[in-house]
Amino acid sequence: MMALKEKGVEFVSHYVNLPRFEQHEPAYLRVNPRGQAPTLVHDGVVITESTLMCEYIDEAFEGPPLRPAPPHERARMRAWTKYLDEEFGPSLSMIAWGRFLGPMYRNTERAQVEALLARIPTEERRRTWRTAIFDEFPAGALDESLLRLQEGARLLESSLERSPWLAGGSFSIADIVGYNMAGGMPRLFGQIMNDESTPRCMEWLERVRSRPAIRAALAMDRGALRAAGRPPLEGSP
Amino acid sequence: MMALKEKGVEFVSHYVNLPRFEQHEPAYLRVNPRGQAPTLVHDGVVITESTLMCEYIDEAFEGPPLRPAPPHERARMRAWTKYLDEEFGPSLSMIAWGRFLGPMYRNTERAQVEALLARIPTEERRRTWRTAIFDEFPAGALDESLLRLQEGARLLESSLERSPWLAGGSFSIADIVGYNMAGGMPRLFGQIMNDESTPRCMEWLERVRSRPAIRAALAMDRGALRAAGRPPLEGSP
Repeated sequence: MMALKEKGVEFVSHYVNLPRFEQHEPAYLRVNPRGQAPTLVHDGVVITESTLMCEYIDEAFEGPPLRPAPPHERARMRAWTKYLDEEFGPSLSMIAWGRFLGPMYRNTERAQVEALLARIPTEERRRTWRTAIFDEFPAGALDESLLRLQEGARLLESSLERSPWLAGGSFSIADIVGYNMAGGMPRLFGQIMNDESTPRCMEWLERVRSRPAIRAALAMDRGALRAAGRPPLEGSP
Repeated sequence: MMALKEKGVEFVSHYVNLPRFEQHEPAYLRVNPRGQAPTLVHDGVVITESTLMCEYIDEAFEGPPLRPAPPHERARMRAWTKYLDEEFGPSLSMIAWGRFLGPMYRNTERAQVEALLARIPTEERRRTWRTAIFDEFPAGALDESLLRLQEGARLLESSLERSPWLAGGSFSIADIVGYNMAGGMPRLFGQIMNDESTPRCMEWLERVRSRPAIRAALAMDRGALRAAGRPPLEGSP
């Protein structure tokens, strides 16, 4: 939504309630058989994976560029999205599953949980949900993820000491992907991201958040959460 | 090297002998502190990760495009490189480490192995080498990787039934990345990739291999391997 708003593209948004497993309902699986959100549909083309969607949106539509022009800054942008998607994001997810998502189901009846799990289309996702709900993380896995978040905060900080945006001199897809992961860290992981240890990160989050398009996307998100009866988590990942 | 040859860019190649751990020697670590090959250096810019290098090469130099023009085919190209880099490649690597790389050191003295391991700059790589050399893979991990290779072969086959190249109608970075992983499969995993079960894959490998630029890159690679005293493995990953 941030990329679409930044480009000024009109779109229709369908909210998918993840904790209610709406991503595993037949209507959604017809669009995205892997049962993961979000999904972008444009002129019959279906694109999944947020980062790929952002590159597609930048290439398919007019509007302000979301990728720097110099090839070396583009490479830096993609090095960031690769790192965020493959290392930082999974660590953040593991902790989010363990601390927040899993516990939401700990008081649900076993049979009901099994019924929800049975609907998940891929074995890998089924295993992830099962691990989180029944708290079956391998010993040390959550601690290791926390260490990786710390390393990520250090990498973000040192990049932002060199330039105002992750890819260099201009706002890019790296900032969108980065914000969506790190935006909630000062609140959820205040010991890792705060004014003292990561001042550049804090300024950068504020810089992203104050862009009119980002503000508009976040407001849409809050509206959808409210309509679905979920508590809106300001800047949550 | 394939991307550079396809673009017609002149370059100087430095062969890094991985089984001799040359990627962990100080001279190489000064260029790439993570100690992974390959690394691209252009005008003082250092780019790591093969797929990112390919996108950089296509953006930084003149020559025939290595990415399709239509945004939806570009998205398909990136969906392929993402899948190859994040799922297919790691499964292939795990088996390659377990079957080929690890056993190369099983007769080496323990102290000498420990000395080699101590030079590895990242904890994650050190753990990977240790697991392979001492055959400490978790139960079932190699079998699961084999299943993933089978799934990958099926996905490649069904994509190549729809179009001659992975991204659609034109040769692209997806074919380069795909060839570098799947090129050795008919020889190393003949039960998975062969004329009967994956005829489209076999034709595609031949189509990639017969391109003059790919031929030239493979010849350079064979020359470097011979000069280093390593047996050249035709089309090996």
